Amino acid sequence: MEKKRIQIFDTTLRDGEQVPGCKLNTKEKIKIAKRLEALGVDVIEAGFPTSSPGDYQSVQEICRSVSKTAVCALSRAVEKDIEIAGQALQYAKRPRIHTGIGTSNCHIRYKFNSTPDKIIERAIHAVKYAKRFVEDVEFYAEDAGRTENEFLAKVCENVIKYGATVINIPDTTGFCLPEEYGDKIRFLKENVKGIHKIKLSTHCHNDLGLATANSLSGIMNGAEQVECTINGIGERAGNTSLEEIVMIIKQNSHLNLFTNINTKLISSTSHLVSECTGMRVQANKAIVGINAFSHSSGIHQDGVIKKRETYESINPEDVGIDQSSIVLTARSGRAALAYRCKKLGHFLNKNSLDLVYSIFLKYADEKKEITDRELKTILKKANLNANNKILHTPNNRRINVV
Amino acid sequence: MEKKRIQIFDTTLRDGEQVPGCKLNTKEKIKIAKRLEALGVDVIEAGFPTSSPGDYQSVQEICRSVSKTAVCALSRAVEKDIEIAGQALQYAKRPRIHTGIGTSNCHIRYKFNSTPDKIIERAIHAVKYAKRFVEDVEFYAEDAGRTENEFLAKVCENVIKYGATVINIPDTTGFCLPEEYGDKIRFLKENVKGIHKIKLSTHCHNDLGLATANSLSGIMNGAEQVECTINGIGERAGNTSLEEIVMIIKQNSHLNLFTNINTKLISSTSHLVSECTGMRVQANKAIVGINAFSHSSGIHQDGVIKKRETYESINPEDVGIDQSSIVLTARSGRAALAYRCKKLGHFLNKNSLDLVYSIFLKYADEKKEITDRELKTILKKANLNANNKILHTPNNRRINVV
Repeated sequence: MEKKRIQIFDTTLRDGEQVPGCKLNTKEKIKIAKRLEALGVDVIEAGFPTSSPGDYQSVQEICRSVSKTAVCALSRAVEKDIEIAGQALQYAKRPRIHTGIGTSNCHIRYKFNSTPDKIIERAIHAVKYAKRFVEDVEFYAEDAGRTENEFLAKVCENVIKYGATVINIPDTTGFCLPEEYGDKIRFLKENVKGIHKIKLSTHCHNDLGLATANSLSGIMNGAEQVECTINGIGERAGNTSLEEIVMIIKQNSHLNLFTNINTKLISSTSHLVSECTGMRVQANKAIVGINAFSHSSGIHQDGVIKKRETYESINPEDVGIDQSSIVLTARSGRAALAYRCKKLGHFLNKNSLDLVYSIFLKYADEKKEITDRELKTILKKANLNANNKILHTPNNRRINVV
Repeated sequence: MEKKRIQIFDTTLRDGEQVPGCKLNTKEKIKIAKRLEALGVDVIEAGFPTSSPGDYQSVQEICRSVSKTAVCALSRAVEKDIEIAGQALQYAKRPRIHTGIGTSNCHIRYKFNSTPDKIIERAIHAVKYAKRFVEDVEFYAEDAGRTENEFLAKVCENVIKYGATVINIPDTTGFCLPEEYGDKIRFLKENVKGIHKIKLSTHCHNDLGLATANSLSGIMNGAEQVECTINGIGERAGNTSLEEIVMIIKQNSHLNLFTNINTKLISSTSHLVSECTGMRVQANKAIVGINAFSHSSGIHQDGVIKKRETYESINPEDVGIDQSSIVLTARSGRAALAYRCKKLGHFLNKNSLDLVYSIFLKYADEKKEITDRELKTILKKANLNANNKILHTPNNRRINVV
């Protein structure tokens, strides 16, 4: 069976940037955009040009800076927004306008004080208007996660008629469970007239920790594009993490999907985004956290030293990390200790290892982590001979070392 | 339909603690254990007593410190481990030993250099031996995620015969996709003799960002217990986050599930664990990240000010957070600006707001966030009169303020 290509739409510079504590200047945004192009993303959502003069300028400069990747600008279903988005994109080789409107009852009633029919009119008008500026128009049905499927299908059918090329089905509030979100995508695939002419896109938020699972469920049910960010940054609890969805696709060949991403650049791209935005990545973040390929418990270390695959299903080299690390803590066992001593040039036999281990545990119970320097101190305390064997007194009693 | 209770097995003090950069002393562990009891977890996995004298002591002290919650200690399928676990638990009101062995081909072959039959023998012996010390014995089939379902069922059948009360099905390497993990649980539910006598438990790792989704899939297919940690800390990319799985259950009443967790203590428990362990939580972590209920983009702020539910499906008060926050950045719009000015006592009309907004944008494009102090400076620059109206010169031209 031929593999299907999933488009990666990166919104680090738009949804990722619009969060408290994160602010990128134009220079930093260009740097990140160039890296995203090298990484192989299909679309870069560069900003929301109407929001501020600075953001307008950034989108314009990004269009000048990337050569192959499509550049997308966000707008509301408002003529002025769309016009400004179109202008900001004028230098893009492959421009896309991303426009749309809320379609859930909650948005129609409380945000727009409107009616479903009027929302469809506004959606159609936005797409028609955007088409004046660019050929490639993506429509978002905001809060699609909480929109009734029948009405959502009606919205989709209408915007397809007027030339939308991609339709984005955002789970704006991170509300859906994976099955529910997948069912929604399948419902649209099966019930919307003209759906084969366009691509369906997932855009999931992580409020319940399910953004990645929902995106996966979306593409398993027919979506062709995933909207995501580096390190999963984004509004509130963030968006689907690019690194997670890309590695899921890579690790599971039975899904018959692929992306254009050069996964070996994932780790360095994560660092770049974290540095520029000042948004720290937690140690246990999947794939890009500093602990993602570290092992400190004895059981795991013993396994990894015997064979990496016992405790790692992803090869760290695939995401640009040299090797797994074996960290010494109070939960480490003899295997890890012997491994790290060996790296320092000390090949310990069973008796020597037992002795060094007993000293090690006293240190480790007091400390978070035992460094090479401390390990050298421990080895010195063990007072081994030049062959790493235990020194004995003339009457064959072990010399008391601690 | 009657709701089914899902047991929450917290392993923050065991799987959570065994990571590089994290080390808790006995006093801190007791403090966290008491908080977990107040939070309402069903089981506290307190440690791995054989790993170090410090950990043994912690488990012992935790048993003395909690009054209702079950306390569990980890061990390998090794007599000495089990014995030490049993001793460490001697003061527990409700002690549980958690013992087990790797069951995947990879573990059997490379970690144990053994055969499937011998692994079953060791599993049976471990359970029988643990039963000498406690009645409540949980068995883990390590790397169950990569274990063939037929063999896994055989292992389960055997340990049930010898008295296991709970069987843990760990996706040790974070390998499974949600559907696959759910299918595994359902397979065991349908094919293991005696399965009704015991509880099945999920234990998922987050290497591909799917720990929470996999746990959810597990309980939707019949598992009765979820193993998880506060903030999702744990080996490598961590474990299922307690706060995520608990809030998913709470938010989705159609699942017909419930837990004993007092969700209003989630936020403070997260802070306590983060402070004690030194493991920072990233800003966009679901539910407990500092941005989880913050809004800075104009579109979202406008909606949330009109009605909170437009951009939040979880009520922050449910997890112990007072209210959503409206943060002013370059992506903010007039609605948020007016809201924050109002909080400072300035009720702006349309013209005044337009003026203040134009000054605000110049500031905001340079800064990450506009504080109340800076907002006061901006209002001063706008030079409004006492009624917050724009001052005009005698010949009715607006006074140039910037």
